[in-house]
Amino acid sequence: MKTLSVDLGERSYPIFIGRGLLGNPELVTPYVRGKQVCIVTNETVAPLYLEKVKTAFAGFKTDSVILPDGESFKTLETLNLIFDGLLKNKHNRTTTLVALGGGVIGDMTGFAAACYQRGVDFIQIPTTLLSQVDSSVGGKTGVNHALGKNMIGAFHQPNCVVIDTDTLTTLPAAELSAGLAEVIKYGLIYDKPFIGWLEQNVAAIRNNDPETLAYAIEKSCSTKAEIVGQDEKETGVRALLNLGHTFGHAIETSQGYGNWLHGEAVAAGTMMAADLSARLGWITAEEVARTEAMFVAAGLPIAPPASMTAEEFKSLMAVDKKVLDGNLRLVLLSALGAAVVTSDFPMTALDQTLQHFLK
Amino acid sequence: MKTLSVDLGERSYPIFIGRGLLGNPELVTPYVRGKQVCIVTNETVAPLYLEKVKTAFAGFKTDSVILPDGESFKTLETLNLIFDGLLKNKHNRTTTLVALGGGVIGDMTGFAAACYQRGVDFIQIPTTLLSQVDSSVGGKTGVNHALGKNMIGAFHQPNCVVIDTDTLTTLPAAELSAGLAEVIKYGLIYDKPFIGWLEQNVAAIRNNDPETLAYAIEKSCSTKAEIVGQDEKETGVRALLNLGHTFGHAIETSQGYGNWLHGEAVAAGTMMAADLSARLGWITAEEVARTEAMFVAAGLPIAPPASMTAEEFKSLMAVDKKVLDGNLRLVLLSALGAAVVTSDFPMTALDQTLQHFLK
Repeated sequence: MKTLSVDLGERSYPIFIGRGLLGNPELVTPYVRGKQVCIVTNETVAPLYLEKVKTAFAGFKTDSVILPDGESFKTLETLNLIFDGLLKNKHNRTTTLVALGGGVIGDMTGFAAACYQRGVDFIQIPTTLLSQVDSSVGGKTGVNHALGKNMIGAFHQPNCVVIDTDTLTTLPAAELSAGLAEVIKYGLIYDKPFIGWLEQNVAAIRNNDPETLAYAIEKSCSTKAEIVGQDEKETGVRALLNLGHTFGHAIETSQGYGNWLHGEAVAAGTMMAADLSARLGWITAEEVARTEAMFVAAGLPIAPPASMTAEEFKSLMAVDKKVLDGNLRLVLLSALGAAVVTSDFPMTALDQTLQHFLK
Repeated sequence: MKTLSVDLGERSYPIFIGRGLLGNPELVTPYVRGKQVCIVTNETVAPLYLEKVKTAFAGFKTDSVILPDGESFKTLETLNLIFDGLLKNKHNRTTTLVALGGGVIGDMTGFAAACYQRGVDFIQIPTTLLSQVDSSVGGKTGVNHALGKNMIGAFHQPNCVVIDTDTLTTLPAAELSAGLAEVIKYGLIYDKPFIGWLEQNVAAIRNNDPETLAYAIEKSCSTKAEIVGQDEKETGVRALLNLGHTFGHAIETSQGYGNWLHGEAVAAGTMMAADLSARLGWITAEEVARTEAMFVAAGLPIAPPASMTAEEFKSLMAVDKKVLDGNLRLVLLSALGAAVVTSDFPMTALDQTLQHFLK
């Protein structure tokens, strides 16, 4: 087992990465402050892992809330089901919520923990590659709104994160690929050598090789932890983590949440960002091709859905959280392995990118 | 005009108290960081003051959201109407929300500001006595849940608070009385001389005398600011502000939110807390009678609704946020003008209090 530390002053917490960690009380017990625990999971994950996780919390009064599965349920309405469960079982301010599932469960459980009685503790047990490498680090929580993804939420850090790589053996191949989109992202924005490692190891990851997976997760989490440690509330460098996300969110909003997986939308969005970066002369056409080949090898899309138009894209991007006073700010690649947040690009270049990918 | 300061480190903010402040751009402009403002108010207050407040924000792109009026609308569902308005009008992370109305508007707007894009600025313009002396200080925001009042929320401090005492001239008499319940509370828990002042001045307050009102508001806000400054997140002394609230919340939950005004429930709840305090020998029967006389003079109830039973009370109090690991903790009067949070009382004494007031 590896232990990483996310350093955020008094809100610091450990991430445990390894095999067979789910049912281990020794890992989680030190991070439960009170006597009550509420495990929040979904209909897909519950039959696989809920009983095992309950054994880790056997020393506590443990309840569970089982939500419907899918990004389309990441709403205020579903959030209320968590509050229903907590109140019916009389959970008080010292309760600990446990998020058992993917990013949707993690984001909603974290947000429920941020708001329940104005803030209670929570522990993350992410069971998808995407949530292990992305949403388990950094404390971003929230739900979607019909008019925009993740528009309602809070910053709320977990007490600890338990990543059991064995959970990935039950993950559908498309979801493993979706997680790889974020893994590749860390290379693209921050770590050129990791790009080379990934090019060599994408196949082993897709074949669920535990050692390779553990390294990819550890590397991703430590990169994210390093960035978040510098900028917890995303006033600066943290925004780089959103490479491909402004384009990607437009795809997700347009297609209806959950029809494109988040990682798929990020992959296509990253290709759009790479295309624009190349038009600005910041990366070469060869580097764009190398990026594209990696996404293809990872089993990911490299373009937005054919049904979308450039007009639709621009309108959806205008409500993105990175829009400041009407200026569209994008994360672009300043080189392969380095990124910038910028609104300093000609609109004609963006138009050319949109026209390249869309009708 | 008086200016009070709520000292909370980097989250400190001023409270302006005086007549004719609503339309004054000089007070609020320094506290707006971006270019967008969204005024949130309700159907009762909008026709009275919305246009005037808009003039104070004339230099900004100003939108407004008008909610239905009443505690029964203090829900996640109504909260979503604020998010609808913000997203439809493309408000970004630098927007400022303005709460124009009573405690319900203040709590919901503050919570919307805490959650919108994971946190934006807000300004409070409370227009009821209750919200001026209570919810405008301290940063508690939130909504109700069918199973418990204020169960979902966040701590989120305003950038500034503008209290225009002229707004009280349009306030119904019952709501002025409800506000007085909290004013009286500050005397009971913290300030014996203020109890004497109130006994002399309740009539003038109910007659809307501006000078007397301004003094009562200033005194209440400064007492609350002093307590909140010592304990922003309510881990200690701040809990004293909840005198009468555990009993009071049980009344509000039982009667359906909004059928008893919050201040009315607090008054009846405070009488129950006073009765229990007397049974424990901490205050005299004479002091209970003095407390009762003050509430009567303020036009407030001194007992819970006759329809409630002791059993119902105990069950509703068990989900209160102050219940820690099954121990019921109550704010009681350790003397007239001083309070404690305690679970150190015999259950039989509580039963006697409940039987005294209920069938």
